[in-house]
Amino acid sequence: MTKNRSQKQKRARQGQSSDHGQRGPRKSHDDTIRIFGIHTVASAIANPRRELIRLHATPNAQARLVEEILKIGGNPSRIDGLVQTATPKEIDALARDAVHQGVLLVAHNLPALDIADIFDCKLVVILDQVTDPHNVGAIMRSSVALGAEALVMTGRHSPEESGILAKTASGGLDLLSMVSVPNLARALDDLADSGFDVIGFDSEESEPFEQIIAEQDPSRPLALVFGSEGKGMRRLTREKCTALARLDMPGPIKSLNVSNAVAMTLYACMLKRAGLLTPK
Amino acid sequence: MTKNRSQKQKRARQGQSSDHGQRGPRKSHDDTIRIFGIHTVASAIANPRRELIRLHATPNAQARLVEEILKIGGNPSRIDGLVQTATPKEIDALARDAVHQGVLLVAHNLPALDIADIFDCKLVVILDQVTDPHNVGAIMRSSVALGAEALVMTGRHSPEESGILAKTASGGLDLLSMVSVPNLARALDDLADSGFDVIGFDSEESEPFEQIIAEQDPSRPLALVFGSEGKGMRRLTREKCTALARLDMPGPIKSLNVSNAVAMTLYACMLKRAGLLTPK
Repeated sequence: MTKNRSQKQKRARQGQSSDHGQRGPRKSHDDTIRIFGIHTVASAIANPRRELIRLHATPNAQARLVEEILKIGGNPSRIDGLVQTATPKEIDALARDAVHQGVLLVAHNLPALDIADIFDCKLVVILDQVTDPHNVGAIMRSSVALGAEALVMTGRHSPEESGILAKTASGGLDLLSMVSVPNLARALDDLADSGFDVIGFDSEESEPFEQIIAEQDPSRPLALVFGSEGKGMRRLTREKCTALARLDMPGPIKSLNVSNAVAMTLYACMLKRAGLLTPK
Repeated sequence: MTKNRSQKQKRARQGQSSDHGQRGPRKSHDDTIRIFGIHTVASAIANPRRELIRLHATPNAQARLVEEILKIGGNPSRIDGLVQTATPKEIDALARDAVHQGVLLVAHNLPALDIADIFDCKLVVILDQVTDPHNVGAIMRSSVALGAEALVMTGRHSPEESGILAKTASGGLDLLSMVSVPNLARALDDLADSGFDVIGFDSEESEPFEQIIAEQDPSRPLALVFGSEGKGMRRLTREKCTALARLDMPGPIKSLNVSNAVAMTLYACMLKRAGLLTPK
């Protein structure tokens, strides 16, 4: 219980700053995140850029965690002096009943990246006001799996949402360059100026995505822009895209869950790179 | 409040039967489902096979619902005599705080289908012990969008889970043939006997999916089998597949959320049908 209280005080102290200047100086961290689940915590510890604060773990789970850290090439000695042995029930309280597998890491958020930090990426996913942490987490996971290197978002999540997001991302949060921008239209201009093809998904005035991607010059970096379900991209976001694509669905439902749409389009990019997509 | 109580009594009376014989006589319904959200309720009402019991709606939402029913070609007179005008708060209580948009339909579950009922389908999705209602709902939605005609599952959901599932499926529950089987191995045998290629996803002793699908005879019907995340297909399920496929991921995360994996593989089937997938 005392752990729980000190935890809350810490969050209260560290949760207030919110200045994410797109071109301003980098912030080292603006608040903390609670990361749970063996695989997700291991990925965070294996990420040298992730500053660790405290690890709550049951003795059994700690042993499994160390194995997992070694398996993915991380350094388990990073947790020396940070472990607070806990019961499953104590961790339940900290994880607010999420599935934690006996480990919960309190860490600093990763240093915020600038849009300029991802100019050398080849494949980038951009979300215009997609906020559901389950969707964003699943998008991170498939982005990493399917070879995207960065995710650009318009908003930031609360520490509690970030925990859900990190768990859903299944390690993706520590394997993807994350950029949060206050002005997405400007960020898209910056990407286009640095040579990116910026393809936005929209049902109107658009070409079939398969055609665009089959014809795309593979030497050019690619940014895929997705709007929120229902609303789609905002008008200004749409205007800044260098091409508009649509996903034609053969069935009576014409729209997909956004994380499924992202997975499908990244998969098409992978097929293109592998020479498996035939231009019409 | 009285509405709420009579509702519970009705569920208690109707929720007990659980005999889903794979080859036995069809049951007309074994329990009820609460369906909420304008689009999802409209799809249920537009489905002549869906037996309606009672509709709770705010006056505004009812007007929007009627519009939506007409838009998708349904018959709004099906709700005559079934509407109980309600406040948003009353519907909150019935929907247990899910996003209901002012409408909640109490209906019978759809008549259970036999595996033999889907022998004439061309593309079928099969889930081996995938139970999370958000995942199953998203899978229904992308199945309908991407042209799959049936979903075979091993378990059934509680009425409460079914409501979440129906909402996530965004109308897919009423647009897909749903089969629930007690013995999946037997169902896979039946599908193979009736001419299906049964492709299971497994990381071991498998070929790249893109290769299998590029070479598949398009005149043969196709069943895609997915196991649960983490555990994969059960041994017997695996043995009954006519081919084992894997999805090779270029990035450091090697597995996908199951609904994303289903969307990707159905998309590959769509690309194949459209002549856009190149055999290696």
